[in-house]
Amino acid sequence: MKVAVIGGGAAGMTAASRVKALQPSWDVKVFERSNFVSHAPCGIPFYLRGDAKRLEDLCTYSADYFRRERGIDVHMNAKVTEVKDGVLVVEEGGREREYEWDVLLFATGSKALKLNSEDLNGIYYLDRMEKLEEIKRRVLKAENIVVIGLGYIGIGIADAIVSLGKRLTIIEAKERPLPEFDAEISAILKLEVEKFAELKLNESVISFEGKDEVKRVITNKGEYKCDLAIVAIGLEPNTDIAKGFVKLGKNNAIKTNSRMQTSRENVYAAGDCAETKNLITGRPDWIPLAVPANKTGYVAGVNIAGYEMHYPGSIRSQLTSFQNLEIGKVGLSEWEAIREGYEVVSSFISSKSIARYLPDELIHLKMVADKSGRVLGVQAIGKGVAMRIYAASAMLYRGCNVVEAFFTELPYYPKFSRVWDPIVIAARKIFRKLKIP
Amino acid sequence: MKVAVIGGGAAGMTAASRVKALQPSWDVKVFERSNFVSHAPCGIPFYLRGDAKRLEDLCTYSADYFRRERGIDVHMNAKVTEVKDGVLVVEEGGREREYEWDVLLFATGSKALKLNSEDLNGIYYLDRMEKLEEIKRRVLKAENIVVIGLGYIGIGIADAIVSLGKRLTIIEAKERPLPEFDAEISAILKLEVEKFAELKLNESVISFEGKDEVKRVITNKGEYKCDLAIVAIGLEPNTDIAKGFVKLGKNNAIKTNSRMQTSRENVYAAGDCAETKNLITGRPDWIPLAVPANKTGYVAGVNIAGYEMHYPGSIRSQLTSFQNLEIGKVGLSEWEAIREGYEVVSSFISSKSIARYLPDELIHLKMVADKSGRVLGVQAIGKGVAMRIYAASAMLYRGCNVVEAFFTELPYYPKFSRVWDPIVIAARKIFRKLKIP
Repeated sequence: MKVAVIGGGAAGMTAASRVKALQPSWDVKVFERSNFVSHAPCGIPFYLRGDAKRLEDLCTYSADYFRRERGIDVHMNAKVTEVKDGVLVVEEGGREREYEWDVLLFATGSKALKLNSEDLNGIYYLDRMEKLEEIKRRVLKAENIVVIGLGYIGIGIADAIVSLGKRLTIIEAKERPLPEFDAEISAILKLEVEKFAELKLNESVISFEGKDEVKRVITNKGEYKCDLAIVAIGLEPNTDIAKGFVKLGKNNAIKTNSRMQTSRENVYAAGDCAETKNLITGRPDWIPLAVPANKTGYVAGVNIAGYEMHYPGSIRSQLTSFQNLEIGKVGLSEWEAIREGYEVVSSFISSKSIARYLPDELIHLKMVADKSGRVLGVQAIGKGVAMRIYAASAMLYRGCNVVEAFFTELPYYPKFSRVWDPIVIAARKIFRKLKIP
Repeated sequence: MKVAVIGGGAAGMTAASRVKALQPSWDVKVFERSNFVSHAPCGIPFYLRGDAKRLEDLCTYSADYFRRERGIDVHMNAKVTEVKDGVLVVEEGGREREYEWDVLLFATGSKALKLNSEDLNGIYYLDRMEKLEEIKRRVLKAENIVVIGLGYIGIGIADAIVSLGKRLTIIEAKERPLPEFDAEISAILKLEVEKFAELKLNESVISFEGKDEVKRVITNKGEYKCDLAIVAIGLEPNTDIAKGFVKLGKNNAIKTNSRMQTSRENVYAAGDCAETKNLITGRPDWIPLAVPANKTGYVAGVNIAGYEMHYPGSIRSQLTSFQNLEIGKVGLSEWEAIREGYEVVSSFISSKSIARYLPDELIHLKMVADKSGRVLGVQAIGKGVAMRIYAASAMLYRGCNVVEAFFTELPYYPKFSRVWDPIVIAARKIFRKLKIP
């Protein structure tokens, strides 16, 4: 059997590895347009800060490792230009070649949403590993850095730049940072961001000014000096190559079933280019995150190899941080739940994260449930957030109501936790609203 | 209605608070033999270290608070000497009084197992808040401290003493520290403990020597200088007063149903004195931990107040630490599972707790499952343990097999976690043994 994988990121390499592990004799080819495989863009802020010294540190394994240890035929700098029935057209080494396939996997990832503006030097998007060294050099010498967009990706980039001791201006079109979160959480983040950066909310970039090099950002409300602009206004599935060949769904992500099969039987999709099921709403969704990318890659690989495995879906579980604030969210925020049509009850608490008598800062946690008591989401900011979002993710992945959340036995140790955990207290606060004793 | 609660610890005060919240007009009396209510013995190591400055810091609220804010009639230094049908006999203020009750709650907690040895000054058990100031004074001036027992409580005490810069000798009768855990975990702990203390394993205390003051500990293998001995060889339910009045079960804990009712309809039990259901084995068990104590108190209170609520059971979820090692366990270790009659498969992994390119130490994690793939327990030691035991507890509380554990979407952020979490990798390692692709 000939298996072709388009894209050597997390999903593609996980799937290819799985196929070779289960079917060692099969021919598995991966076509990666860049010079990196199994790259993890989540690490970009840590590369900018200097924690990850080399770009290669962001890649779990090298192409050579995949070739040597896993027997995968990895093609680097190989751009797939056309997908045909049974054949891929690939540009590599300066010429065009065709490769036959029996089973195909799309693992083409996502790409940055672009501003509709001039293309000047010094304006960067974050979806190309190749640009990162250049971005890093410019961050270190820039005097007026502007980050555009303060969502999940923007916050990580802003945090990295602040950690380098650089002041910066942040422009966010919505009325608050991390607009996916509810206002209670964003308000706390806003106070912290404003200590380190000029934060411009409700403000949209209209254009950049400069000659060759960017010099200024013009918004609907003002203009700001700028010798480096990093744009993080969102992502979209990188599915141009798949369009017309397989059906697209939510946000133009490739439609898949729970085996990660597309509308064609021998064609699969995994990772950021693929649609998945949102386990909270039960509906198709597009959730471009690293963990689902790896897991859908795994599932695609198992099914491509002729076995059967189903991906249950995703709960959009996220963690990030800004300076000393840990920030996390799983499931739906209140405004997202309302938009999805739920009648919502919620609770918000601020509490120490560990025993009262030990020094620590607060955790602020919000729980959102529907009228039946089913937990739809948990968000938190402050200290001890990672472990709460870990626990909440485990709760929500299987479905959980507020009574089950209340009884879940989260361990107590004064240095790490509280005997009445903030998750448990948040669940109990919802009891009253639902007339549970 | 007259409600009487014997014992003002976590379970008793939670239950009393619940009854008053739901039935404000009822007469709720709590009889506490010590001078403390809502005391949290988990904090004892942190009091010894000086993190909690005052004994009162270990109590969530004062008796006055419960009287004033919650309308509970708290009797301090009030020892219940006899339980009769509808009447309690109480020694308080130097005389004996009788109090009538319509509903009774046993919340008498647990007590330390005693060594069968001489009673000299300088030998301490840890179940009396009143002794703690004295213990602390002696810890600070002692030259040869011996801790006897290196289980869940002993490890916390040993850690506190080491943190004060004191060397100590630890004597444990079993062949390894934390004998509830499996050998892989204990072995790592042993290496760390031996950096700070003389650790004597497979060694049993036979007697103490001294005149008034303890001077030496004699074991089956040697003798050790000792001017302070802290004994932490285990607990037993404090149920002498209940014996003959209600049925006792596992380890002489009071038999209860899921409403925390005892063998008598109007008599309840909660906290460390009560039996509960082990959610992993499905069988009655005795699990004296703070979180179940608070929750069973809550459930008892709701039911006493005339509502209906069921306590699902406990998974024995625990966290502790020794110096830089976090240590945790939920459910059964492998040897416990075998003892319970399970056919067991397990996996053990050592991995960084966060992204490869960030500085961090290892987490060592073991997962135990039965032949059907059902997860029976998770143990870990090292870095990032608290958040993994948090997640594993949420998984195990609802029941979980290795495939569900694998798919559980635990969020990735390089600073806090890994894209393939150690729990997920441990689950996947069991796949092979169960022929899951």
